[in-house]
Amino acid sequence: MSTPQINAERLLTSLHALGQIGALHGGGVNRLALSDADGQGRDWTVARMRELGMQVTVDAIGNIVGLCPGTEDLPPVMIGSHIDTVRTGGLYDGNYGVLAGLEVIATLRQAGIQPRRPLAVAVFTNEEGARFQPDMMGSLVYVGGLPLQEALSTCDADGVTVQTELQRIGYQGMAPVGAPVVDSYVELHIEQGPVLEQMGLQIGVVEGVQGISWTEFTVQGQSNHAGTTPMALRHDAALVAAQVAVFVRELSQRLGGRQLATVGALRLSPNLVNVIAQQAVFTVDLRNTNSAALAQAERELHAYAQQAAQAEGVHISHRTLARFEPVDFDPEVVNLVEQQTQALGCSYQRMPSGAGHDAQMLARVCPSAMIFVPSVGGLSHNVREHTAPADLQRGAQVLLQVVLALANRPV
Amino acid sequence: MSTPQINAERLLTSLHALGQIGALHGGGVNRLALSDADGQGRDWTVARMRELGMQVTVDAIGNIVGLCPGTEDLPPVMIGSHIDTVRTGGLYDGNYGVLAGLEVIATLRQAGIQPRRPLAVAVFTNEEGARFQPDMMGSLVYVGGLPLQEALSTCDADGVTVQTELQRIGYQGMAPVGAPVVDSYVELHIEQGPVLEQMGLQIGVVEGVQGISWTEFTVQGQSNHAGTTPMALRHDAALVAAQVAVFVRELSQRLGGRQLATVGALRLSPNLVNVIAQQAVFTVDLRNTNSAALAQAERELHAYAQQAAQAEGVHISHRTLARFEPVDFDPEVVNLVEQQTQALGCSYQRMPSGAGHDAQMLARVCPSAMIFVPSVGGLSHNVREHTAPADLQRGAQVLLQVVLALANRPV
Repeated sequence: MSTPQINAERLLTSLHALGQIGALHGGGVNRLALSDADGQGRDWTVARMRELGMQVTVDAIGNIVGLCPGTEDLPPVMIGSHIDTVRTGGLYDGNYGVLAGLEVIATLRQAGIQPRRPLAVAVFTNEEGARFQPDMMGSLVYVGGLPLQEALSTCDADGVTVQTELQRIGYQGMAPVGAPVVDSYVELHIEQGPVLEQMGLQIGVVEGVQGISWTEFTVQGQSNHAGTTPMALRHDAALVAAQVAVFVRELSQRLGGRQLATVGALRLSPNLVNVIAQQAVFTVDLRNTNSAALAQAERELHAYAQQAAQAEGVHISHRTLARFEPVDFDPEVVNLVEQQTQALGCSYQRMPSGAGHDAQMLARVCPSAMIFVPSVGGLSHNVREHTAPADLQRGAQVLLQVVLALANRPV
Repeated sequence: MSTPQINAERLLTSLHALGQIGALHGGGVNRLALSDADGQGRDWTVARMRELGMQVTVDAIGNIVGLCPGTEDLPPVMIGSHIDTVRTGGLYDGNYGVLAGLEVIATLRQAGIQPRRPLAVAVFTNEEGARFQPDMMGSLVYVGGLPLQEALSTCDADGVTVQTELQRIGYQGMAPVGAPVVDSYVELHIEQGPVLEQMGLQIGVVEGVQGISWTEFTVQGQSNHAGTTPMALRHDAALVAAQVAVFVRELSQRLGGRQLATVGALRLSPNLVNVIAQQAVFTVDLRNTNSAALAQAERELHAYAQQAAQAEGVHISHRTLARFEPVDFDPEVVNLVEQQTQALGCSYQRMPSGAGHDAQMLARVCPSAMIFVPSVGGLSHNVREHTAPADLQRGAQVLLQVVLALANRPV
């Protein structure tokens, strides 16, 4: 029997249809988690699952799972991602993983193929974290990493809870959280970075998710007249912030490998041309696939920040905004993704994910891996987010073959 | 005949009385140029001039001049400063110079002393520039450095012109701009910096005003995901801004002497923890008493900024926000200030002014100098601005003796 081929046109049509819900004037989409548009997107997706004959369940945190029975009563192979977006998002982030999952189901159904294990397609609640924090909330609750009640009582900026919004849009379901128990998990996603495009590669075989360390520093200096305060008498909060920003770039170059370091946010006060800054608040985003290297980068950052603050006679304090250890995906599932990519003749590389994904939560409870396709210009969380149709097709085909191999492997 | 002594209590009483007009709850004062409060402050000051028997004139830009005749019909020795304040100002900046001038007049009148030359006390319009730019507007127009019509048509942030406001508060006068022609000019001012206090000195003999160069840079980089963009592929606008901020500190230390350098304002966009900055807009404030050294600092700044931008693959542009050459005060008047300070037994040093003052404009048309007294904590443009009563008294006494010497010197 030849391998069934996914229908690229059907996949594209469904991406554009879902992209109409919450569409922004001029392109892009806004389907913030648990908004009306998210509710409509969920309705559309559930309807599509039912058309495909899937049994649909919704759990108490709003995760949607569509299930197709296998020939044997075994835990399902799950394909998953999310359909919520940031405020000015694109059509592909998350949505591609869910709709490619449904395209896999449609293709197998059309070909009359029923694998040994059941197949599940999951839509996890609030992956983006753009409205309710933390991000990856639905998958985190699913794997037992966050108590359900804590997630449900999370408020958005207007003080509205997750529970209120889930009930309002009709997606607080009755299914037990964490069911079904999953055999294995595969997530297909756009890269959201420039690496594949820059290297001219078609597929990223994702080996894991890098660790993330977000720190906010507050430097307290002394506000003074820029024209009358001698350099030696200054306590300049802006200078120390700038020194740390320059340091973290040097640090990333010195540590090399996969060490990333970014100062993306910085606010000075009073922020006037002729006044030495009294306060600087800035963030440092450190990422590394290696746990020990990430901890080393954090230690060096804090040591330097203390030293720079002391030299300038200012006070520096910090708080951790986020901290995730690196996640390694299951070597066997990663190998399977690589084999199927090779079998299709696609160019590829093994790589880490720079961004967080639901797959890193599922990896806590079952063998998991991810497949990346190129993002044009590396753009994501942007209305100009784009992936070429041929790349979307290739990624979905790899997904189909990986899932089929997982579902049919010997018990 | 012994030198008459100024009445410190009367001076302090007048400072606190004027400070009541536009007083802020909890301390400080808000008398923005040409506001209602500025108008009331002017009325109070003019009334005080008339009580002292002075002939008061107001010119077309609202500069107020009170005149006392001398024994001979010669150009007057002028004492001047301003009574407008920033939005959250103190009682002393500007006001001290004007009210000490009136205290000099009162003291001489009480002692029955009429010097050879007439004495004038000037209140210049809009020295602060907090509402209408440029700052030092009244004195700049007075010396012919800015056309009257251009100054009158200047708008504040609400689109209201200087002329409209001058007429509204009743201070667009009939006196010709630039009259009277002045023999010499002396301005007494709080230091607005920490140097005298730090050195434990009582008087600053001001030799000139340092040059000022304000540049705003705009760095245009590329916004990208901080977790998925390799360091080598980044075009980080924030990094270049930080590098320039660190560079200007090093530059000031390397050039040494009187070179000051400050990055006080910096805005990133989109200013998010996990997004590489697309744009950074920041200012560099360079000051030096030496014209050539200031120009050298500017050249080095621009060369470095270009080089840093090129290395990061970002675009950098700049615009000049302000540019004033250093001003040297008249050596003879400066020497006279030093002699009278010594004669009083005050501790002092010769020093430049870090901030701009009306005296630098008058220096274009007559021999001029300034006298500084200490600012507690170097604070100014701040409701906590303070100078000790004994320092206020000493400064006014130096002013009296300098003015008397100037006014009585041989023709």
